[in-house]
Amino acid sequence: MQPVNIGLLGLGTVGAGVVDLLSRNRSEITRRAGRDIRVTRAAVRNPDSPRDCDTTGIDIGTDCHAIVNDPDIDVVLELIGGEHEARDLVMAAIASGKHVVTANKHLIALHGNEIFAAADAAGVVVSFEAAVAGGIPIIKAIRESLAANHIEWVAGIINGTGNFILSQMMFEGVSFEEALADAQRRGFAEADPTFDVEGIDAAHKLAIIGSIAFGIPLSFDRIYTQGIRGIASDDIEYAAELGYRIKHLGIARRQETGVELRVHPTLVSEKALLASVEGEKNAIMVYGDAVGPTVYYGSGAGAGPTASSVVADLIDTVRMMSVDPKGRVPHLAFQPDQITHEPILTEPDFECGHYFRVQVADQIGVMAEITRALAEQQIGIEAILQKDPPTAEDDARVMIVTKPARERRLMKVLDHIRSLPYTREGLVHMRVAQFED
Amino acid sequence: MQPVNIGLLGLGTVGAGVVDLLSRNRSEITRRAGRDIRVTRAAVRNPDSPRDCDTTGIDIGTDCHAIVNDPDIDVVLELIGGEHEARDLVMAAIASGKHVVTANKHLIALHGNEIFAAADAAGVVVSFEAAVAGGIPIIKAIRESLAANHIEWVAGIINGTGNFILSQMMFEGVSFEEALADAQRRGFAEADPTFDVEGIDAAHKLAIIGSIAFGIPLSFDRIYTQGIRGIASDDIEYAAELGYRIKHLGIARRQETGVELRVHPTLVSEKALLASVEGEKNAIMVYGDAVGPTVYYGSGAGAGPTASSVVADLIDTVRMMSVDPKGRVPHLAFQPDQITHEPILTEPDFECGHYFRVQVADQIGVMAEITRALAEQQIGIEAILQKDPPTAEDDARVMIVTKPARERRLMKVLDHIRSLPYTREGLVHMRVAQFED
Repeated sequence: MQPVNIGLLGLGTVGAGVVDLLSRNRSEITRRAGRDIRVTRAAVRNPDSPRDCDTTGIDIGTDCHAIVNDPDIDVVLELIGGEHEARDLVMAAIASGKHVVTANKHLIALHGNEIFAAADAAGVVVSFEAAVAGGIPIIKAIRESLAANHIEWVAGIINGTGNFILSQMMFEGVSFEEALADAQRRGFAEADPTFDVEGIDAAHKLAIIGSIAFGIPLSFDRIYTQGIRGIASDDIEYAAELGYRIKHLGIARRQETGVELRVHPTLVSEKALLASVEGEKNAIMVYGDAVGPTVYYGSGAGAGPTASSVVADLIDTVRMMSVDPKGRVPHLAFQPDQITHEPILTEPDFECGHYFRVQVADQIGVMAEITRALAEQQIGIEAILQKDPPTAEDDARVMIVTKPARERRLMKVLDHIRSLPYTREGLVHMRVAQFED
Repeated sequence: MQPVNIGLLGLGTVGAGVVDLLSRNRSEITRRAGRDIRVTRAAVRNPDSPRDCDTTGIDIGTDCHAIVNDPDIDVVLELIGGEHEARDLVMAAIASGKHVVTANKHLIALHGNEIFAAADAAGVVVSFEAAVAGGIPIIKAIRESLAANHIEWVAGIINGTGNFILSQMMFEGVSFEEALADAQRRGFAEADPTFDVEGIDAAHKLAIIGSIAFGIPLSFDRIYTQGIRGIASDDIEYAAELGYRIKHLGIARRQETGVELRVHPTLVSEKALLASVEGEKNAIMVYGDAVGPTVYYGSGAGAGPTASSVVADLIDTVRMMSVDPKGRVPHLAFQPDQITHEPILTEPDFECGHYFRVQVADQIGVMAEITRALAEQQIGIEAILQKDPPTAEDDARVMIVTKPARERRLMKVLDHIRSLPYTREGLVHMRVAQFED
């Protein structure tokens, strides 16, 4: 069979990883795919920059549109990242009848609805396994392997930078700022870490996960997003004493009335599998009504793991190039005319356990007042810890983990506690996730 | 589009789970697959037996061959289990041009080579995700998601019964016999537990994993297989003191000279993810050269999880029914003419860490002699533990964990230790797996 010609847009870390992997494992990949897959053209900003791969046989230029329109190119591989230019190029590739593979979560989360509609109309496939959790095949797992299930929830550590920072705070006892600086030194965090530490990168990925799990349109702008900046080492310690680890999770969860899509720091029981995922690793837990809990673990970033998913998509694309579009796996797991528009719930309707820490004057009746307020809102208590604060001798710190409760009710309790005369400033609140492994 | 008609062979626990799942999640499944999937005929031993599912609309009879030859049946679902009858029915279904889905590991491990050759010749697909690790999508992960990788090794807890027994021995402090009886009471183990406790069930699964990981023919009869019968509670305790858990693993691993395919009790560092997989759960770790380590966790058995994988295969089959066979995922991950015949190594060539326990007379020079014997074979020591035995006051028990070593060399050391005048009967040896999470 004829080789398949790939046109590569962007030859940075991931692009070089793909070229290197296709060359290193060429014979095994061809043995699996049935056809040789080769990168014949690439477009880059500066053709004279040094590359992390052998570019022999690749025609390197600067014009992305020339590649997108080249009739000899069978599949366009978009690895330039970012939003607008990538969108225009992918739409142009689709318009010229080419299949597309991309690792761009930002692009898919924001423009996926438009892109998939165009691809379905043009009879081409846009693949994006590498856009979520790097080398972990979570898109295929949810979209194909769990296709028989009513997915109840998905919860994942889907930002390696954030997880690395939290692991360092836990095990090295460093502050958030020190851990972030360490992550930047090691190349796990960008110079501008906003996307990672504010939860935006995780929200991009969660938009994709939520869509394929529930058959809803990509809904990035409806995601509740909270980052890890400002998590105190104290809370990491107290959580540990209570039997929990603080993880930054993306959670997509069904309720009767709609779906929760939320990204925030979360307390996870130290016995749960997700609690033991350390450093820059990712893990995603998916709960289907038939299969029960399943977990997928691996490297969420880096040239090799990302290239692994990109090339898997290329192999799938090659296998599908002869296929009637109706027979393909739908882009968003459900057939395009079967996407539904379920309500996406906001914070007051979230339902989960809660952790809060409040500093109060150490006097009789305080704990009674706090627990009474919880009881009044019918919120059960899972664990209570009381400690002397590092300073302020006459104060006490109270840490409480509640049983699952509607967030609206918990907020009433916290408002009440804040209003009490003996309550100090700076109440800390985090959500708790209870998982059934 | 026309509904797809499934002919079901066998309506036991898994069969009822499939019928129930197809009915319960009908609308979501149709939204994903693009066509309605319905079981229209089933063949059972006794049509009057009560069923665990609503069989309305299913024509239930006793003649499997009538279903296999029914022109109105699009896909045959083989769930009768066992070897010979299942083989004949699957081969007949292929001969009549029907796609097949099966959960039968025994069948695939022993007759897969013949079955896949016939299916490729007939242009039909035989799917078997449920044959390995129940609801965990490990076949698709290795065959499709990691297709860009040179797979270095796969190691998995792939027999839930065995893992349950080992967990009970660890946490309840019971003996092997007591834990087995408990597993039987709870329905995790068959009345005749031979396949589970002797490692045969795990070897069936490992044959399939090894084949799709390395592109070699199914090689069940070449697998080194050791069960969990006879593991002493003492060794579970000592292993724990040394920082290890004993797990029953299936391991497929490349060496320069060939591949290791082995099933045996294995010490795993308590820090490794696989160590924390408890009870009847399964987990498989796959190490690819590009992606690094990945882990897949979930329920390895039961009606719901197995039905989840069976119905995923049905959905894949429905999507592929319009597809050119050349474009499909190859049965054994590699194209049929690209299967190679690598040497399969035997025990002396296995390379891993080792644990051994030996009871000796407590006299000067014994430890020196044992460690000298290891050094002479160039085997490094990872950890040493010495204990008084429960009885025999003048004896000592020595437990050693070695660094990875060729098994041939370790056997020489053990033979030497056995031959020493102060060595008692009953030296215990187990292998250790070192994983990079």
